[in-house]
Amino acid sequence: MEIIAQAKEMQRRSEQRRREGMIIAFVPTMGYLHTGHLSLMREGRKRGDVLAISIFVNPTQFGPGEDYGRYPRDLKQDLKLVQGAGVDIVFTPSAQEMYSDGFQTSVDVERVTQNLCGISRPHHFRGVTTVVAKLFNIVKPHLAFFGQKDYQQLITIKQMVEDLNMDIEVIGMPTIREPDGLAMSSRNAYLNSKKRKEVLSLYRSLGKAEELFGQGERSAATILQEVRRIIEQENSVTIDYVKICDARTLEDIDEIKGEAVIAVAVKIGKTRLIDNIILKEE
Amino acid sequence: MEIIAQAKEMQRRSEQRRREGMIIAFVPTMGYLHTGHLSLMREGRKRGDVLAISIFVNPTQFGPGEDYGRYPRDLKQDLKLVQGAGVDIVFTPSAQEMYSDGFQTSVDVERVTQNLCGISRPHHFRGVTTVVAKLFNIVKPHLAFFGQKDYQQLITIKQMVEDLNMDIEVIGMPTIREPDGLAMSSRNAYLNSKKRKEVLSLYRSLGKAEELFGQGERSAATILQEVRRIIEQENSVTIDYVKICDARTLEDIDEIKGEAVIAVAVKIGKTRLIDNIILKEE
Repeated sequence: MEIIAQAKEMQRRSEQRRREGMIIAFVPTMGYLHTGHLSLMREGRKRGDVLAISIFVNPTQFGPGEDYGRYPRDLKQDLKLVQGAGVDIVFTPSAQEMYSDGFQTSVDVERVTQNLCGISRPHHFRGVTTVVAKLFNIVKPHLAFFGQKDYQQLITIKQMVEDLNMDIEVIGMPTIREPDGLAMSSRNAYLNSKKRKEVLSLYRSLGKAEELFGQGERSAATILQEVRRIIEQENSVTIDYVKICDARTLEDIDEIKGEAVIAVAVKIGKTRLIDNIILKEE
Repeated sequence: MEIIAQAKEMQRRSEQRRREGMIIAFVPTMGYLHTGHLSLMREGRKRGDVLAISIFVNPTQFGPGEDYGRYPRDLKQDLKLVQGAGVDIVFTPSAQEMYSDGFQTSVDVERVTQNLCGISRPHHFRGVTTVVAKLFNIVKPHLAFFGQKDYQQLITIKQMVEDLNMDIEVIGMPTIREPDGLAMSSRNAYLNSKKRKEVLSLYRSLGKAEELFGQGERSAATILQEVRRIIEQENSVTIDYVKICDARTLEDIDEIKGEAVIAVAVKIGKTRLIDNIILKEE
């Protein structure tokens, strides 16, 4: 396994591999890896000849007052994990390597970034799309894997790739959950055992939504009311949003037709957690 | 010579060539080709194994009331010209091919686009960087050639390429002029013979600036005053801007040190023309 910190060197390596006719699979991460990340790597290992991942806590996607400084990091442990996952190349640049003096360019995806997390995190997706565009140009993958847990991020990246004609297949992979249903996230590390229990209301509420949908309920308002009720039962959990949106445009919808996403963001203490499920008519 | 209209087909072709170890040289144009474009292609032919050009009048870089509709077009004549220039591939997409329904992504370079043409054409450079990012992803060049006549565009593209880690060498080529000094531009076709004579004041004024600089003048105000005076002698020419800027940051400067650009934009009738020269201390 190679560990590369310089963008130019990563590009040279990827260019070589592409010339040799190899398919490069890429999993971008912010490290502090969990089973969710590993499931992306497993798929990348299956579909690519070369499996590259990046570990980079990207400062520009954190807003003021968000958790950039305290975001969990453990490179040594991460490297151990990925070695076991069959990763060929780990790209771990410094912030200075990614954003040198004079940096002044951004990539913006307009409409799909407006709703949901775009409301309370106004510059978050600009940070994400800009760094992912950079990483794509550095790693030069054929395939890139993202988790559906960050559903809006996945849709935004797909839109960017299509709009900017990036020659990359973006693959969304199912959310991986703890045995009790909590969606895997590096930020779960922030939770003590009391909070850890309380946030299970997220999963429970989404399960209820799925149940209602399965029973034929198509009114977003009716489902959302029930979801809110379940989450609000937990005193220390405050809702940022609970929304049902068109699964592609991410616009709010009143009535569920075709494919929709029900997405939830909450705060528990200083920790912000998100989750979602797809509601799809058979 | 191949003519390709579909982005996917162009990508496939470029990918093949790259796999074969060939160097792809690329000259993006809006067509209505002149000797300036041909000089870029000559250099591309020299430095690349494959010479690709694009012909696409990009709607998003024209503002409301600008000349998108009447911008001169002559694809038949262009194709004749480029065949003689040794072009291997011409990429000529439709506007629909480049901007399909749902398009919503932009690339922005912040600081170097603020001054000069950025003032009177507020969304122009966003249109340019977005379409050039797309073209780069479609044509996948190793080398890309731009004329120094559009100096701010050249600097902006270089900044984008650096900031987004595009693995492309951007090469600026000297402005090509008519025998009487007028910078080659597709928009020169708008000028009748009377206006054609009057805009020579642009070149004359830049010549004067160079002369003063050569004599040791370093005050921007002094040089600009002289340049303005010469241009304003022509009744039908109105100045949009005349500025002396740092050649890299494009910020206004009072005193010329190192490398500066003196840039001029004027309107004559409905026609907007720009020109510039570099002032560089030996």
